[in-house]
Amino acid sequence: MGEMGFYAPNLDGYGLPNVSETAYGLLMQELEACDSGLRSMASVQGALVMYPIHAFGSEAQKERWLPALGAGEAVGCFGLTEPEHGSNPSAMETTAEPDGDEYVLNGSKTWITNSPIADVAVVWARDHGEDGTPVRGFLVETDRDGVTTNEIDEKLSLRASITGEISLRNVRVPAESRLPGVEGMKGPLSCLTQARYGIAWGAVGAARNCFETAREYATDREQFDQPIGGFQMQQDKLAEMATQITTSQLLAHRLAGLKERGDLRPQHVSMAKRNNVRMARDQARVAREMLGGNGITTDYPPMRHMANMETVYTYEGTHDIHTLILGEDLTGMQAYQ
Amino acid sequence: MGEMGFYAPNLDGYGLPNVSETAYGLLMQELEACDSGLRSMASVQGALVMYPIHAFGSEAQKERWLPALGAGEAVGCFGLTEPEHGSNPSAMETTAEPDGDEYVLNGSKTWITNSPIADVAVVWARDHGEDGTPVRGFLVETDRDGVTTNEIDEKLSLRASITGEISLRNVRVPAESRLPGVEGMKGPLSCLTQARYGIAWGAVGAARNCFETAREYATDREQFDQPIGGFQMQQDKLAEMATQITTSQLLAHRLAGLKERGDLRPQHVSMAKRNNVRMARDQARVAREMLGGNGITTDYPPMRHMANMETVYTYEGTHDIHTLILGEDLTGMQAYQ
Amino acid sequence: MGEMGFYAPNLDGYGLPNVSETAYGLLMQELEACDSGLRSMASVQGALVMYPIHAFGSEAQKERWLPALGAGEAVGCFGLTEPEHGSNPSAMETTAEPDGDEYVLNGSKTWITNSPIADVAVVWARDHGEDGTPVRGFLVETDRDGVTTNEIDEKLSLRASITGEISLRNVRVPAESRLPGVEGMKGPLSCLTQARYGIAWGAVGAARNCFETAREYATDREQFDQPIGGFQMQQDKLAEMATQITTSQLLAHRLAGLKERGDLRPQHVSMAKRNNVRMARDQARVAREMLGGNGITTDYPPMRHMANMETVYTYEGTHDIHTLILGEDLTGMQAYQ
Amino acid sequence: MGEMGFYAPNLDGYGLPNVSETAYGLLMQELEACDSGLRSMASVQGALVMYPIHAFGSEAQKERWLPALGAGEAVGCFGLTEPEHGSNPSAMETTAEPDGDEYVLNGSKTWITNSPIADVAVVWARDHGEDGTPVRGFLVETDRDGVTTNEIDEKLSLRASITGEISLRNVRVPAESRLPGVEGMKGPLSCLTQARYGIAWGAVGAARNCFETAREYATDREQFDQPIGGFQMQQDKLAEMATQITTSQLLAHRLAGLKERGDLRPQHVSMAKRNNVRMARDQARVAREMLGGNGITTDYPPMRHMANMETVYTYEGTHDIHTLILGEDLTGMQAYQ
Repeated sequence: MGEMGFYAPNLDGYGLPNVSETAYGLLMQELEACDSGLRSMASVQGALVMYPIHAFGSEAQKERWLPALGAGEAVGCFGLTEPEHGSNPSAMETTAEPDGDEYVLNGSKTWITNSPIADVAVVWARDHGEDGTPVRGFLVETDRDGVTTNEIDEKLSLRASITGEISLRNVRVPAESRLPGVEGMKGPLSCLTQARYGIAWGAVGAARNCFETAREYATDREQFDQPIGGFQMQQDKLAEMATQITTSQLLAHRLAGLKERGDLRPQHVSMAKRNNVRMARDQARVAREMLGGNGITTDYPPMRHMANMETVYTYEGTHDIHTLILGEDLTGMQAYQ
Repeated sequence: MGEMGFYAPNLDGYGLPNVSETAYGLLMQELEACDSGLRSMASVQGALVMYPIHAFGSEAQKERWLPALGAGEAVGCFGLTEPEHGSNPSAMETTAEPDGDEYVLNGSKTWITNSPIADVAVVWARDHGEDGTPVRGFLVETDRDGVTTNEIDEKLSLRASITGEISLRNVRVPAESRLPGVEGMKGPLSCLTQARYGIAWGAVGAARNCFETAREYATDREQFDQPIGGFQMQQDKLAEMATQITTSQLLAHRLAGLKERGDLRPQHVSMAKRNNVRMARDQARVAREMLGGNGITTDYPPMRHMANMETVYTYEGTHDIHTLILGEDLTGMQAYQ
Repeated sequence: MGEMGFYAPNLDGYGLPNVSETAYGLLMQELEACDSGLRSMASVQGALVMYPIHAFGSEAQKERWLPALGAGEAVGCFGLTEPEHGSNPSAMETTAEPDGDEYVLNGSKTWITNSPIADVAVVWARDHGEDGTPVRGFLVETDRDGVTTNEIDEKLSLRASITGEISLRNVRVPAESRLPGVEGMKGPLSCLTQARYGIAWGAVGAARNCFETAREYATDREQFDQPIGGFQMQQDKLAEMATQITTSQLLAHRLAGLKERGDLRPQHVSMAKRNNVRMARDQARVAREMLGGNGITTDYPPMRHMANMETVYTYEGTHDIHTLILGEDLTGMQAYQ
Repeated sequence: MGEMGFYAPNLDGYGLPNVSETAYGLLMQELEACDSGLRSMASVQGALVMYPIHAFGSEAQKERWLPALGAGEAVGCFGLTEPEHGSNPSAMETTAEPDGDEYVLNGSKTWITNSPIADVAVVWARDHGEDGTPVRGFLVETDRDGVTTNEIDEKLSLRASITGEISLRNVRVPAESRLPGVEGMKGPLSCLTQARYGIAWGAVGAARNCFETAREYATDREQFDQPIGGFQMQQDKLAEMATQITTSQLLAHRLAGLKERGDLRPQHVSMAKRNNVRMARDQARVAREMLGGNGITTDYPPMRHMANMETVYTYEGTHDIHTLILGEDLTGMQAYQ
């Protein structure tokens, strides 16, 4: 990853230097136009690892990790989801027991992007040294005894990205590995808001790449002695695709504006993640279909995007969870259970 | 209509004084939140009657009509659509034959908002005094001999608006009734672009009124001992409604920005008219359904908006025609026939 | 209604003589092809009034009411829904207090088809003379003291049908007015299953009438110098309409087969009511749109069907309630609250 | 394939012995519940290779090929689609030039299921020995000089099936390789009708397998302390899935009934292929989404079915082509170009 440095803005020089939220968003869009796996890597490194260290870490933690992570010399991962707790992370079971000036961590995390290649994991666990066992973040080097990070293979989606588990068995870390600046679910949730912001932008890139592929194909490919782009039913698809991409991109720009002036709420991001990813998922399929038989090969990107969007639809808050976040915001009533 | 003066901006003081395109759009939104018929009246008077007189009229035409129209002391209507030529106005059959210093008009127009109450009609006709019989606009007082303007009753949609025909039988108008400044279909089409701009905004208002009604109902109405707004399936509807309204409103704002800096193309307006009206049509139905049995009465506005949107979906370029306008823009190929 | 006698089969000669469930379904289909209000009237009289008297009534009740109802000389209505209990009828508040050899009824029913013109109402109420105050049915003549049946006007849907309330204030009926043969919610629910069976068929009729109208219009109406039925985008609509009508009709036939051999479960009827009514609601809208401006007038039936289907979508179990009935059947878990 | 013998009925003992069209359909359903590739193989062997030999072949052709194909000792393939002619096969460019008592074949076929492993190909070509160069079928052994059958790899769909090209360069076959009993496009089209019949059934199997997987998962998987199947939003998905599968299966049964009594028209099959495959494609995606992160792995079948259905949606007549076949049937007007 070296000098790419494609990380979140506003990390005091550790991430992207002096870029606006819009410029960051556009970068995510370009990355995801290539592949959702590339944008995922950037989101993890920037929004889920560097951001919490920067926002909640000690000076020592920042000094140790941010330059290396920012330069791509170290790879991080974000350990929140557990096998039995996907949509409900606050029910997490991973524990951190204080023992002298150390913590002993136990638990299992899964669906962790980059865990098999990570140098450090931001692990969220219940701190049994505090009343109410609040959730706290810990920086855990992956070469510590008791840490294993098996890769999840046999994925049919986001194949360009490495996904794994993090198993923690009596893993000892120094007390100063704990992120001092945050307590409770607002720690991991604030990271997710950062990452979802990038996803809302990125999805537009994937859809745009699908649209451009389909449009070019429709202009070139002839059937019944004319380019298929001249048929009403194909124009209907292109018109809809262009419209959906446009409105989704406007929503991403709107997020950027709100974020830059400090008015962004997590629910705004939920709306955009939910809408834009579904849009990309739908339009990738339409683009795939416009390519006919050629659309099922690796010669054209839409089917790959289509498969990738299944992951993106599900991770960082499933579509349905964001629906209920919005529902709560709009009605004042919770309907998660 | 008197002092309401809710007309297009940029009419040199005849319309809204010194308002931005955004402010005009927001006004259309408020009007349509009340009823699509109210916004329709404003669109006709401003975008379809005052605009062409202002843009293409002689000084005498402007002086005679704009102050009265702007003050609501005169009512105008826009005669383009013919019984056999709805989606294809360039096939119009209405003729204007020069005869001395007069023109003799013959033809039929239909689906003309306000024709039964109008003082003046902007009638588009083929000018047989010119080579190629180009389309030209004529200002025709409705009390001239040979003009009849029957009302179309038995409408199930847009009932707050008056719609009629314009029948022209050997109607004589002075030659100076012709709009001097434009020739060909770009005359009426440029008016339609103005009107569609207002529709793209207005539809958001109708949808927003539906949403607010449904949200309030869902918060108040209890079934199974709790407000129905606390149920997942109802939250799903509200979340989707809020998202669709938000993206449509962003698209309207985007149009305003493009229009103010002179970058607006008719195709941009087609995208927004098509998207926003469909959105309002869909969401009105969802809001209606959330109101249960109460939703079919006149006690709540969504069913009225739902019925109105059928007209708005069809007029000023049907949904399908806008699809094909976008399709042509995206592929360079025409697929109208 | 006289000799029409369009009522449920299997009423021992009181309803339709010797017809199969399929023939009854086809009759409902034809009625709703005219108007949902006509089919509603038949459903109420047959499935909601004659059926419970036949199935749960005493011999005296049958003799008194069935011949008159079957001949259309008396009109009945079905009082289940209350103002605060639409989707959850088991929470009904209407009470029947025994007093000597009479019952005293108190409560309010609403959205009662035909109540303002009915001679008799099948009123469901909590019987306070029995342990647990189970729901029981009572045959209440509408001219009894304390009965009022205000009409709900200002409906925008099902305007051909009369809908009203039933208000019961200390209404005294003889004890033998109670339907002896059923206790609890299975009484009214079994009636609803009969009525929903007819709706599942009827909706197909409404959709078919819309389809035929749209197809004929598309064949006749020319734009761009050819019938619009020759355009891809219109053929897409017709093809989808024909497909949806076909599959819905097959589902209705399937119900008939199951019903005739005694294998029909209420959940089967829920699936068909839910699917077929939504289908008709969607396709009516598409047909309306194919008619362009002409589609908003009373000259063509689709917009009327479209408005009617809003009621049909909501009554006799809303779409969402049938979703949850199916959900419970498929998972074994209740999710109503 | 040996003794599986899962081929079309009514091949005089060469295919399935004495089974009804329904039984054949149910078999296709079971095969596709495993994988669309398995059903594809059966469709090709039975409907596209054995059927034309049986229906249009000479006695010698039947004797040589049907027993071996029926026993799975020989594998066949069907060469119709060309690189430039997918949806419009009648524009095919492959030629058969008579030369003495031989034909010389030249051309390219692509998207040919099983071509790389086939012993014989049914190749459709323009017969230059006849007036008007009508399309005729030829049985071409794949080991003849000039035949190459490259595999198309890098497919992201239907990976369990082998797909390839057939390149014909001056391939000489004896004149008696020509299928004597049919001339023109009705030859290959009648084969496609047979195959599409099987697809209409098969798609139901794929969808049913997805449904069963999702239902079981929803019953087992807990989040927020309860099985997710108890949540309204998940029940909504299951209810819809069950409904769509039911109506599609009824449509397949209806085809079987029509086929058995000889009333099946190709347009009936188009309706069912189009509807049922789209249904399976949509529902596979919903099932995938219900499985959350686990749904993107090969541990569960829905994502594989989802990918497969992209091929099935496109081959044997794309969704859009079947739309236009129905459109023509309903309007009497062609809109292919």
